[in-house]
Amino acid sequence: MITRLSRLFLKTLRDDPADAEVPSHKLLVRAGYVRRVAPGVYSWLPLGLRVLRQVENVVREEMDAIGAQEISLPTLLPREPYETTNRWTEYGDGLFRLQDRKKADYLLGPTHEEMFALTVKGEYNSYKDLPVVLYQIQTKYRDEERPRAGILRGREFIMKDSYSFDLNEEGLKNSYQAHRDAYQRIFERLGVKYVIVAATSGAMGGSASEEFLAESPVGEDTYVRSEESGYAANVEAVVTPAPASLPVDGLPAPVVHDTPDTPTIAALVDWADAAGVLDRPVTAADTLKNVMVKLRHPDGKSEILGIGIPGDREIDDKRLGASVEPAEVEMLTDADFAANPFLIKGYIGPKALQDNGVRYLVDPRVVTGTSWITGADVAGKHIVGLVAGRDFTPDGTIEAAEVRDGDPSPDGRGTLVSARGIEIAHIFQLGNKYTDAFEVDVLGENGKPVRLTMGSYGVGVSRMVAVIAEQQHDEKGLRWPSEVAPYDVHVVIANKDDAARAGAEQVVAGLDARGLDVLFDDRTASPGVKFKDAELLGMPWVLVIGRGWAEGKVELRDRFTGEAEEIPVESAVDAVVARIRA
Amino acid sequence: MITRLSRLFLKTLRDDPADAEVPSHKLLVRAGYVRRVAPGVYSWLPLGLRVLRQVENVVREEMDAIGAQEISLPTLLPREPYETTNRWTEYGDGLFRLQDRKKADYLLGPTHEEMFALTVKGEYNSYKDLPVVLYQIQTKYRDEERPRAGILRGREFIMKDSYSFDLNEEGLKNSYQAHRDAYQRIFERLGVKYVIVAATSGAMGGSASEEFLAESPVGEDTYVRSEESGYAANVEAVVTPAPASLPVDGLPAPVVHDTPDTPTIAALVDWADAAGVLDRPVTAADTLKNVMVKLRHPDGKSEILGIGIPGDREIDDKRLGASVEPAEVEMLTDADFAANPFLIKGYIGPKALQDNGVRYLVDPRVVTGTSWITGADVAGKHIVGLVAGRDFTPDGTIEAAEVRDGDPSPDGRGTLVSARGIEIAHIFQLGNKYTDAFEVDVLGENGKPVRLTMGSYGVGVSRMVAVIAEQQHDEKGLRWPSEVAPYDVHVVIANKDDAARAGAEQVVAGLDARGLDVLFDDRTASPGVKFKDAELLGMPWVLVIGRGWAEGKVELRDRFTGEAEEIPVESAVDAVVARIRA
Repeated sequence: MITRLSRLFLKTLRDDPADAEVPSHKLLVRAGYVRRVAPGVYSWLPLGLRVLRQVENVVREEMDAIGAQEISLPTLLPREPYETTNRWTEYGDGLFRLQDRKKADYLLGPTHEEMFALTVKGEYNSYKDLPVVLYQIQTKYRDEERPRAGILRGREFIMKDSYSFDLNEEGLKNSYQAHRDAYQRIFERLGVKYVIVAATSGAMGGSASEEFLAESPVGEDTYVRSEESGYAANVEAVVTPAPASLPVDGLPAPVVHDTPDTPTIAALVDWADAAGVLDRPVTAADTLKNVMVKLRHPDGKSEILGIGIPGDREIDDKRLGASVEPAEVEMLTDADFAANPFLIKGYIGPKALQDNGVRYLVDPRVVTGTSWITGADVAGKHIVGLVAGRDFTPDGTIEAAEVRDGDPSPDGRGTLVSARGIEIAHIFQLGNKYTDAFEVDVLGENGKPVRLTMGSYGVGVSRMVAVIAEQQHDEKGLRWPSEVAPYDVHVVIANKDDAARAGAEQVVAGLDARGLDVLFDDRTASPGVKFKDAELLGMPWVLVIGRGWAEGKVELRDRFTGEAEEIPVESAVDAVVARIRA
Repeated sequence: MITRLSRLFLKTLRDDPADAEVPSHKLLVRAGYVRRVAPGVYSWLPLGLRVLRQVENVVREEMDAIGAQEISLPTLLPREPYETTNRWTEYGDGLFRLQDRKKADYLLGPTHEEMFALTVKGEYNSYKDLPVVLYQIQTKYRDEERPRAGILRGREFIMKDSYSFDLNEEGLKNSYQAHRDAYQRIFERLGVKYVIVAATSGAMGGSASEEFLAESPVGEDTYVRSEESGYAANVEAVVTPAPASLPVDGLPAPVVHDTPDTPTIAALVDWADAAGVLDRPVTAADTLKNVMVKLRHPDGKSEILGIGIPGDREIDDKRLGASVEPAEVEMLTDADFAANPFLIKGYIGPKALQDNGVRYLVDPRVVTGTSWITGADVAGKHIVGLVAGRDFTPDGTIEAAEVRDGDPSPDGRGTLVSARGIEIAHIFQLGNKYTDAFEVDVLGENGKPVRLTMGSYGVGVSRMVAVIAEQQHDEKGLRWPSEVAPYDVHVVIANKDDAARAGAEQVVAGLDARGLDVLFDDRTASPGVKFKDAELLGMPWVLVIGRGWAEGKVELRDRFTGEAEEIPVESAVDAVVARIRA
């Protein structure tokens, strides 16, 4: 197939769009791949659409290869099923909701667990039908608070979402593993550099879940990895390795000190160090900071919770949020402090909380036998030597403290370093959450009903276009791996000679005859303009019909390495085919 | 590609769905091609999705062949452009509207004239860039008042919509013709029986427009055709051939008669016939019926309009509506009659209307020199012999009277007969409506701006699946032409013998190796069940591995003709390939 640049619906731009910050966004707009229509809502112009379809095809092939069956559910969905699972409400402002002319409530599907569960319930009724994996490649909608970076985080986007239905846990594990493997093959084919991280399950419910993150400094997700081991995890999913308990026998008894004007950890450490309360320099890690939050539970009730963490760490809001889900975290108001006069700001200790029935959870590092400098529940007073498991007993532990570079890896091998990534896929073992909600049963081999167990698996298809652009671009423009490039080769005429022009037509026809998709720059523009466009547009191979034509030579450029090679005209077609099929 | 029925996500149904009336709807549901999710909103199960994709591909190939370029605009669209063209309001309840979290107004695109005009304006600025034709194959939304017949009239559906942009009228005509030709090729390939009818342009604006209607008794559109000529038109678009004027000289003067109790045409004809007012039998066609309507103009003003039509015809509301567009037709209220006491119900004549400044339009048959029995504007009185062009002069003509079988064809050849059809495509020469609204100009060859002229062209892609099912089915089930069939061939094992089973696997592998898509019924069900399913599912060829296996024979059935042929196993693959590629 030959596409002539002289007729292609394309205008490249010299300047970066004003609203673009990340390279993929700038380049995809400058190269005429996408255009913004509204916040987080984009048009796909011809070149962009071709990349999108290539990505779709790779995903489709790998899904088909694991026996998944493609179907297509509507985007416009009735409210009722999402009401049944409570997601109509849980999604909050993130859901696009609308009413039809009869005032019936609808939503634009953000993900389709409910509908797939109902679809399988509608068709299947025997264990013999299982397992089944269904998928769709479909436009999805989420009303993101801050759509960003072009198609990287849009409000209208394309996802491949699939759903597995199995008779038992073992089947679910197999379906999950099949997806995990398929996703690895997909990203390998697409040339995406990624890590798989343990993840929390978020609003999806269910248990095991992993995220695939594309490595990228512009990513929104922070994850940590151990460079010594294969361990990687979302920060929310890091389980702090608890140190062993220490003996409490022989530890000094706690002593209350006057510590005027020490409402902050820094002030407290300064006081403690100056006062020499320990027989070594005091650091913030010796203090126990007690942070008060208010949890809003799904039933509407609220609860005040105390969280004790070593004073050298901050609370990580995302980790805290993931730990208390589905409850939501709120700040305490002045009214809350007024209603609970035992909470002395800056001097809160475990004792007052436990005496007053406030649930008190601590960081996993606060094990039995650790000794702390902490609040004495009196303004201007702290306790030194308060020992966990002796002087106070927490109600449990909570993962709420920040994770820092250098923290020990949860797998016991090496230390953690943090990095940024873009979420490109997510796999979940949902279990029974949705099949319970809709009573998705089949008749089992023994004649009794079996509740199916479900997995859900998503890949960001439109986002992948941005991710590849982000990982592969250079300062001159886009660079597309052959698997997803809009065209196999970009042929540039850089010679005004009629003979060269006619020769270029022949070369292009030869490439087309060999089944290649050719982008043919037949414009009358200057060679400089054409070369710049070729670099910006980013086909993997650029064939230049230029000055060497008279001597029977053309030039083949590798967009990735930048290397150029003179080749004889006669063998040009063979050479290009060989490179592409290599 | 081989798909085994034992694993396919499919349950065929014995019974017609309760909500289905038309055959395509019943069969597509029974055969497991689609499933209802909400009114006018359907899921596509594996077989249905395959047909849909085949239709899409045919459409895509023919669009590409006329040089149209595929892009993809969003479905979620901002209000502003549709406000500019007033379609935000004009679409009324037919538009799905919604707000995002910031309360900004959006709509789900029903058609994309505005967005394509803006897209071209955004990219192009020189006459050298033109002409350009852009298209998309996309999910569209219309909040139909009465979604019906499954996917035949859905609220979420797939359309191919394309838009041409030209420098001048001649270019537009070429783009229009190219689409008209491409659509004919599409429908030919899909095996759809259709007519092209002249159409009014509806809410799209602009001038020339034609509809493609698939012939079908379940169609919602009535059209008329001349069997003697190629003429066909939507009823709304029929232009009544006006007879030649007649001389008025020598016609008798009008006479007012007492006609008590004749407020209806039937009563008036009875009176006139009995009174012998004409020297021949009187029919309703001798009377002039004056119908009063109120027009609501887009500026909000209302106008009372008199319409004179021969008394043997009724007003056709659709024709009247199309004639007065963009005004809307309302009934007169009692208050209107009270405010205009010269309107004497049942006895209205042209004179009072014209004396009182009411605009008066007549059917094109009411030419100068025609003589009429009509109201005398006094209760219980009519005039006989009121001559058009002598005794009254209408303000113009209007196409509002019904079209009847036997009416002369507007092209002067033969008479009209009516038929029903399903709208499958619509092509419009829009002209400047949208390019004016958004000032879509390019720099012309002479350095001055040129306003582009635009066409829009739509094909119902998902609807086509229902149309093909509707036109091709028989009493046993669906029948798919090879061009769109989900699978090339359906192989049925109807022999429990292990050797036959193994042989079937070999035949299927052989078909697959030849590049055919095979639906393989490897289930353990009875031959009767399998044959019924094969008929219901409707692949064009069914290959049966049955009793003849032992003698080295298999049976090849033609689903369209019902003919079966025994062929030797050795040549089975060749025979199937030959049939399909014939």
